[in-house]
Amino acid sequence: MSRQMVRPGGRSARVQASVHAAVRELASEMGRDALTVPLVAQRAGVTPSTIYRRWGDLQELLSDVAVERLRPDTTPGDHGALPADLTAWAEQFLDEMASPAGRAYIRDALLGDPDGGNAGQCSAYAAEQIGLVLARAAGRGERTPDVETVIDQVVAPMMYRILFRPDGLDAAYAQRLVAGVLAPAGDTA
Amino acid sequence: MSRQMVRPGGRSARVQASVHAAVRELASEMGRDALTVPLVAQRAGVTPSTIYRRWGDLQELLSDVAVERLRPDTTPGDHGALPADLTAWAEQFLDEMASPAGRAYIRDALLGDPDGGNAGQCSAYAAEQIGLVLARAAGRGERTPDVETVIDQVVAPMMYRILFRPDGLDAAYAQRLVAGVLAPAGDTA
Repeated sequence: MSRQMVRPGGRSARVQASVHAAVRELASEMGRDALTVPLVAQRAGVTPSTIYRRWGDLQELLSDVAVERLRPDTTPGDHGALPADLTAWAEQFLDEMASPAGRAYIRDALLGDPDGGNAGQCSAYAAEQIGLVLARAAGRGERTPDVETVIDQVVAPMMYRILFRPDGLDAAYAQRLVAGVLAPAGDTA
Repeated sequence: MSRQMVRPGGRSARVQASVHAAVRELASEMGRDALTVPLVAQRAGVTPSTIYRRWGDLQELLSDVAVERLRPDTTPGDHGALPADLTAWAEQFLDEMASPAGRAYIRDALLGDPDGGNAGQCSAYAAEQIGLVLARAAGRGERTPDVETVIDQVVAPMMYRILFRPDGLDAAYAQRLVAGVLAPAGDTA
């Protein structure tokens, strides 16, 4: 995470917004590998030392931008029942994370992250969305696994394969994982 | 992976061995962050251009060294039954991978790995070890899950949490994951 606390609306928040925007623009114009701190600073209208002071180095800045891009911008859809809700969420999560852009953001988030805060934030986003899906199901009177179990049995296999073993990742895989975590006792053999 | 094929015993293999050894020695003497290609080249007795030609950059070299360090150097122990064998393997895997050195190697392996070959190799090592454990159990007449299921339900949760959610990782967690993947139908609620 960025090294200073950000007061929403303050100068610090404005600097962050303009630096993040500069990274996104330059990355789409020139490609991510061409980015340098001086280029980003020039586009954002700040000095390079502002960036070094706040983010340490380019890798940490890219990590912050990646986490921002990985933040979910919608609430999980309501399809009337837990299996449909969790399946739809898992399919969309896999689709986004396994895309070339998603993979690049995950790598960036992990890489420039000496204290693990950004990786933890990515996981917290997923846990929050799953928590919403499960709470809605519980409100309908459905039996639900807990959030950590869904992380272990649905999120972790998808993320592990994206990073280490990317063959054969498709919607059917996400569907099988969800079916597994929701299978009632006696239905898993 | 390194860019050239390595003929065992040839000059190429000797260069690789001496460069890998130089990385390990310098990392333990000076810390990983102080490594540079010229320092590694000097210690290994090669020119910097040999390293750039073969590995591209320092990050790719560190990735290759990390994969080498993550290669298992023992066969999984035989404790007479699948639950004991798989539990012992999972506990040891978690112990090694979640250690500070293990975490650093995993990050290095993922980082300097533009084509995904090194991450795939890490996963292949785990799959190979699990395959040995399962084949031995099948030879005893035990029922076994398949390798990919053990990857999804045991390896993936451990690696996901090491990277994204490191709290509460202990032997009891590895034991629960193994118990889950080996639970007979009707025993999972």
